[in-house]
Amino acid sequence: MPKLRQYFPILEWGRRYDRAALSSDLLAAVIVTIMLIPQSLAYALLAGLPPEAGIYASIAPILLYAVFGTSRALAVGPVAVVSLLTASAVGQVAQQGTAGYAVAALTLAFLSGVFLILMGVLRLGFLANFLSHPVIAGFITASGILIAASQVRHLLGIEAGGQDLAQIVSSIMRNLDQTNGITLLIGAAATGFLFWARRRLRATLARLGTPDLLADILTRAGPVAAVVATTLAVWALDLEARGVQIVGRVPQGLPPLTMPGLSPDLLRALLMPAILISVIGFVESVSVAQTLAAKRRQRIDPDQELIGLGAANLGAAFTGGYPVTGGFARSVVNFDAGARTPAAGAFTAIGLAVAAVALTPLVHHLPNATLAATIIVAVLSLVDFSILRKTWRYSRADFVAVAVTILLTLLLGVEIGVASGVAISVMLHLYKTSRPHVAEVGLVPGSQHFRNVLRHSVTTDPRLLTLRVDESLYFVNARFLEDLIQKRVTEGCAIRDVVLMFSAVNEVDFSALESLEAVNQRLRDMGVGLHLSEVKGPVMDRLKRSDLIRHLNGRVFLAQYDAWVALTDAPDLRGGSDGAP
Amino acid sequence: MPKLRQYFPILEWGRRYDRAALSSDLLAAVIVTIMLIPQSLAYALLAGLPPEAGIYASIAPILLYAVFGTSRALAVGPVAVVSLLTASAVGQVAQQGTAGYAVAALTLAFLSGVFLILMGVLRLGFLANFLSHPVIAGFITASGILIAASQVRHLLGIEAGGQDLAQIVSSIMRNLDQTNGITLLIGAAATGFLFWARRRLRATLARLGTPDLLADILTRAGPVAAVVATTLAVWALDLEARGVQIVGRVPQGLPPLTMPGLSPDLLRALLMPAILISVIGFVESVSVAQTLAAKRRQRIDPDQELIGLGAANLGAAFTGGYPVTGGFARSVVNFDAGARTPAAGAFTAIGLAVAAVALTPLVHHLPNATLAATIIVAVLSLVDFSILRKTWRYSRADFVAVAVTILLTLLLGVEIGVASGVAISVMLHLYKTSRPHVAEVGLVPGSQHFRNVLRHSVTTDPRLLTLRVDESLYFVNARFLEDLIQKRVTEGCAIRDVVLMFSAVNEVDFSALESLEAVNQRLRDMGVGLHLSEVKGPVMDRLKRSDLIRHLNGRVFLAQYDAWVALTDAPDLRGGSDGAP
Repeated sequence: MPKLRQYFPILEWGRRYDRAALSSDLLAAVIVTIMLIPQSLAYALLAGLPPEAGIYASIAPILLYAVFGTSRALAVGPVAVVSLLTASAVGQVAQQGTAGYAVAALTLAFLSGVFLILMGVLRLGFLANFLSHPVIAGFITASGILIAASQVRHLLGIEAGGQDLAQIVSSIMRNLDQTNGITLLIGAAATGFLFWARRRLRATLARLGTPDLLADILTRAGPVAAVVATTLAVWALDLEARGVQIVGRVPQGLPPLTMPGLSPDLLRALLMPAILISVIGFVESVSVAQTLAAKRRQRIDPDQELIGLGAANLGAAFTGGYPVTGGFARSVVNFDAGARTPAAGAFTAIGLAVAAVALTPLVHHLPNATLAATIIVAVLSLVDFSILRKTWRYSRADFVAVAVTILLTLLLGVEIGVASGVAISVMLHLYKTSRPHVAEVGLVPGSQHFRNVLRHSVTTDPRLLTLRVDESLYFVNARFLEDLIQKRVTEGCAIRDVVLMFSAVNEVDFSALESLEAVNQRLRDMGVGLHLSEVKGPVMDRLKRSDLIRHLNGRVFLAQYDAWVALTDAPDLRGGSDGAP
Repeated sequence: MPKLRQYFPILEWGRRYDRAALSSDLLAAVIVTIMLIPQSLAYALLAGLPPEAGIYASIAPILLYAVFGTSRALAVGPVAVVSLLTASAVGQVAQQGTAGYAVAALTLAFLSGVFLILMGVLRLGFLANFLSHPVIAGFITASGILIAASQVRHLLGIEAGGQDLAQIVSSIMRNLDQTNGITLLIGAAATGFLFWARRRLRATLARLGTPDLLADILTRAGPVAAVVATTLAVWALDLEARGVQIVGRVPQGLPPLTMPGLSPDLLRALLMPAILISVIGFVESVSVAQTLAAKRRQRIDPDQELIGLGAANLGAAFTGGYPVTGGFARSVVNFDAGARTPAAGAFTAIGLAVAAVALTPLVHHLPNATLAATIIVAVLSLVDFSILRKTWRYSRADFVAVAVTILLTLLLGVEIGVASGVAISVMLHLYKTSRPHVAEVGLVPGSQHFRNVLRHSVTTDPRLLTLRVDESLYFVNARFLEDLIQKRVTEGCAIRDVVLMFSAVNEVDFSALESLEAVNQRLRDMGVGLHLSEVKGPVMDRLKRSDLIRHLNGRVFLAQYDAWVALTDAPDLRGGSDGAP
């Protein structure tokens, strides 16, 4: 049943599961669980949801992804950017802290799940490619800044909000006088410690002779240490009474069965954000999964990944979570810790379920400032302005796409930012192809090769104009070629024949066909011949179905050299068999 | 002053104007004037404006185009599609028949003029290429049907309206019982006569031995004959009293000086329609101008055409007209009648000015049904469903674009129709390039050529995978290649080297560069080499500015045959000098 196995990859790896894989997976699960507990609480805070939502969003989704996903190491759950997008989308339909807010988050996860599964079943994964790499990089960088800025209020213990950088900053400035000194102390200490742990702890432990694996686990446990230390401090010194905001009561127990809101108004309001979240989450997840799979010469199937992530989001929607995707940091940790199969994810889910049942009372006194510090340290590692330098050096068009995405995301918020990025990438691509490179070519003396007359010393004939078109011809550039040929022919009075060399033309659409027909007609009116050379098989197959070839005011040559010999007085210098292309 | 002459083409042809050109131009002007009088009245009716607006829109605009335009034969004035678009746009901001309606039409012309001049000065004429030929053809066909349907009410003498086909038809059906029998008789007779004159008159006259030129003039005068005959009938039989709607009082005199409305609300409401009208008018006009210019081995400058048409529209805005463009029918008549320079247009303008002063009292009793018949006969010649058959045969994607444009224009109106057409063409283009043709190639025995293994009998080596990529690599298809390579390499365990043959790759954008870097990294992790061959100059220039070439887990070969010799055990069969590409 290969079809069934395609939709249930678990049937593939499950059959060969053995004791070695089990022990690798168990170890990885322990490390990832330790890392995920504070992270899940923190991302729920970022999404504007109660902390347990983060834990719930890491249990059922992981299990469902283990059944349907194709990546062996991807760890699914709440991630920073999707949490920010959730806060932004849900904040527009409900007030944070209300029951409606949590229900809207479930609905968002539900819509994402349905959309992803639909895309997967229709095999539309390629649509995610409309997000170009520079747009994603710019978006992630700008989101990182927005997220970090949005968490500053927790470090200060003040009220603040906003969808874009200006709103967030001005809202913080307005309430700066209400800063709680103790909260700031806790927040600053936690942030400092976490930055230090991320940058230096591993090296320090190694210098002290700690075994690699243990050093690894201790480094990952940095956030746990911060959580434990600050929670104890708040509890011991009763800092809650001094105005330090804490997580408070977290319900104890397994994820509840929940129902997303399905009113038409709510669905309509959340549809576009859900699509955006799905696409961004999918793109992130697939690139992580692909990178990890390649390291073990494995493959992932992007269309099946859509189904895996869709199932995970449906799981989140019905168990008190919110939109999830494959996270970069957690997946790398899972992979590095030796996870061999998705069973590692299942064990992680069990670990988190135990935490949800047993550990939630312990986080009662955990200060929000510590969670904010965890988020800030995590997202600032996503901020990477080097993409600006890299794209500037490589291609101005890509630079413009990055710069616009970063600026608009910061200034107008995540949704407008990413949509503008996509729109501008498409526009720039169309603009680039609208003025294709067309080289006038001549014969390299003593050979059968033709090269650009501007770059090489070549032989030409004033009666023959040969243009090599370096782009597929389609509606956006069809008229460009039309104009160019007309310009060249009206300028060069001696021209009797025009040859279009089609070696790099991969497509000729109907607009371009009509343009070529118009060119053909006009050149005929001028008494000039129009010929084609080196037309590719698929292009020729299609042209043969049109009237152009039948009415062509000239010939179609297999090789440009054939055209040269036929249309000039030059002798044929070919030896024998190797003439045709 | 070549710069000045570029912006004022009149300085170019004006210097060489002689008596021969004068007499040719005068004759053409007489013929075009005869044709334009009824046409201008009719198109004003179609636009929902008083009849004189059509005459005014043919005077100043023609003169201004003669100064700024580059086409020698283009005749500028009101045309059917632009009149329909005007009715649709202005109808949304003002009630037909009010002063506000006429002012809004002036504003539309003003905005079009400003937009066109701006596009011309910024040399953005290429943007018009986003309207693909199939979309234009579908749009013109659907507009022709909509226009004809909208005129049926005048043939019946009833009230009716609507923006799309369903609205128009249902509105006609509702009021069908109010049909005026005499109006219907006049309308049917005029329509029948005009169809006959268009199809048969010329042949009949030729059979009777009429000289060609006279036959031509008489044929063009068909509408004039219908106008004269029905006007006389209405006047002689006092049919106005029997309920036949007539043109009525038309002010006598030269075009007035008018001022477009410039309130921010009006400008905002009409901006998008003005852009649409400008672009559609420009595309129509340029293709007519280009076709006619080619017949005399002349050239037009599309960017200067924008300025010429922009000036014409500004002229219309300040002299009681409405949006204008270069018309197909009138330009062909002008050209066929022998117009040699834009002076022919100027003489036509004088002829129409004389008509505006002297002839307007004569059209008082002209029935609207005759004008409607003129419009219907003219626009039904634009309706051409053969584009559906042609595109179906040539390319399904283009067929979809035409079909969607026709359907949505008929069902939802002109603006949504053409906008959807543009959007779907862009989407389909991106879709096509998102799954590029990638051929696995092998060596043609006894040659240095490489061909698709599926189409030809070629030699391959299990350790070497050579893929020829038949498309520029950019963000939409970057991941496709990534997936494809990963799939092929994980399937073929013997593969030790991958060569990407870039002979048809015209661009590698930053996303594709990062994809190639990811592929390079992954293949390195698998112990497989990645090589490039036949990379074009401009592509290589850019790749050299990136890290890819420096970190490439393999080599860059000039010719694919070099790669073959280096990476397999095959002997180098090349004689000597002619090996490099």
